[in-house]
Amino acid sequence: MDVPADPDIAYETLRSLPVPALRALIREGRYRGHTAGLAAGRLQANLAIVPEPYALDFMRFCQRNPKACPLVGVSDTGDPRLATLGDIDVRTDVPLYDVYRNGEPLAAPSDLHDVWTPDLVAFALGCSFTFEHALQAAGIRLQHIEHDRTVPMYRTSIRTVPSGPFHGGMVVSMRPVPAAEVERAIAISRRFPLAHGAPVHVGDPALIGIGSIDAPDWGDAPVLAAGDVPVFWACGVTSQNVLRQAKMPVCITHRPGHMLVTDVDEDAEVPVIAA
Amino acid sequence: MDVPADPDIAYETLRSLPVPALRALIREGRYRGHTAGLAAGRLQANLAIVPEPYALDFMRFCQRNPKACPLVGVSDTGDPRLATLGDIDVRTDVPLYDVYRNGEPLAAPSDLHDVWTPDLVAFALGCSFTFEHALQAAGIRLQHIEHDRTVPMYRTSIRTVPSGPFHGGMVVSMRPVPAAEVERAIAISRRFPLAHGAPVHVGDPALIGIGSIDAPDWGDAPVLAAGDVPVFWACGVTSQNVLRQAKMPVCITHRPGHMLVTDVDEDAEVPVIAA
Repeated sequence: MDVPADPDIAYETLRSLPVPALRALIREGRYRGHTAGLAAGRLQANLAIVPEPYALDFMRFCQRNPKACPLVGVSDTGDPRLATLGDIDVRTDVPLYDVYRNGEPLAAPSDLHDVWTPDLVAFALGCSFTFEHALQAAGIRLQHIEHDRTVPMYRTSIRTVPSGPFHGGMVVSMRPVPAAEVERAIAISRRFPLAHGAPVHVGDPALIGIGSIDAPDWGDAPVLAAGDVPVFWACGVTSQNVLRQAKMPVCITHRPGHMLVTDVDEDAEVPVIAA
Repeated sequence: MDVPADPDIAYETLRSLPVPALRALIREGRYRGHTAGLAAGRLQANLAIVPEPYALDFMRFCQRNPKACPLVGVSDTGDPRLATLGDIDVRTDVPLYDVYRNGEPLAAPSDLHDVWTPDLVAFALGCSFTFEHALQAAGIRLQHIEHDRTVPMYRTSIRTVPSGPFHGGMVVSMRPVPAAEVERAIAISRRFPLAHGAPVHVGDPALIGIGSIDAPDWGDAPVLAAGDVPVFWACGVTSQNVLRQAKMPVCITHRPGHMLVTDVDEDAEVPVIAA
């Protein structure tokens, strides 16, 4: 990295940037932060990169577990572009990456120039930002955003459908919703099948194997107000767990919260092709 | 085949059969006819079977062309079951198959016992029956069904997004819709992204490269009443064309109209997992 990250770019400035300008900052290594609230109206995606011998099994895993791992784009083998999602180079266009060898964390670079090889296949998976924006637009308040926290995420007893070396429990995110708004929150998020869709569970966390709602496995503890019901959605961290568990010689993901910003309209009928 | 097809099973009898009984008849080779109108409320699917070296590229093709090729199930390599879609054996559970070698038709068997090999991967793709049922339930009449004809299908100038050896123009099906009902037909079919979704074109066929609406490339000529608008949906025949064009040593599809009947509820939120 010869371009230092620029900590002086104000968040408000970032929020106002159109996608090409934001992506240029990220591509040059000048912005390495999270992407929540940026690139309004554009699809953001989880990134997973695996060697080709694992790619068919991983793609089958995603097809079989579409609520946790909704596929929105797949690169050609060795090609770092995701042409269907825009002018994207997966080696540079994510603010921070996690690189694993045999399932163990190896590095957290801000580009993949030292890591990319011609046998890699990149997968983009839809992310919860899409339905969160729709919930907010419908007047449903999201407490983790209002309190500037990370959404709480939990391991569960919900099993995924395995594929080759890929298996493991589903990870969910939780958002408290006032009881009177739950049906509406379900109906709204259901409209976004490529962004985790409708919740996988509403109510008692014990029923899906969560011991304590106050002790998430990732993210910050939730803030539940009186009358709030915990609502659980399938979470993209599922794929990260499953990938690590497979102990591949190498695999690469985005650093959680540091998503791939695409050119695709979040409201597109089938948000898998940039217009 | 040691069990002869039974031409004496009345269509009305077939219509009333629950899926397990219908599938047993097909599995035993006793029913080799089309599946339109059968197994009400269950997802039916196009079938495509390719050798594993082609499977990743074909799966990427489907991901990139989800309106023409909506993936609802993929087998493990060499495994003829599609467990996520029900108690299904793709070697026997389709009434009639088309087998191709190097892109040329080789045989049209009613089972694959002589053709199945351990390197094959089976793909199930959503089909138009799903949204047709929803349109009919909403009171929109479908002329090809009322006239007992096959829906007309056309090659178009709409390009698919290529993947490896898979490329070619999109094939569409056309249904005439009264002008006042077009908006509703669009909204209804849009709710079924895994069954071709909203139309790809409404109105003038010349704009998508169709020379004569009265001369479809497959199916029967349409019956347009006064005030009808031609509405064009992406069609599963796209995948059959693309597969043949790739000239693989072997590939297998269902015979058009003779679909794979699954256990999945047609109205499921994400109709890719049998409950």
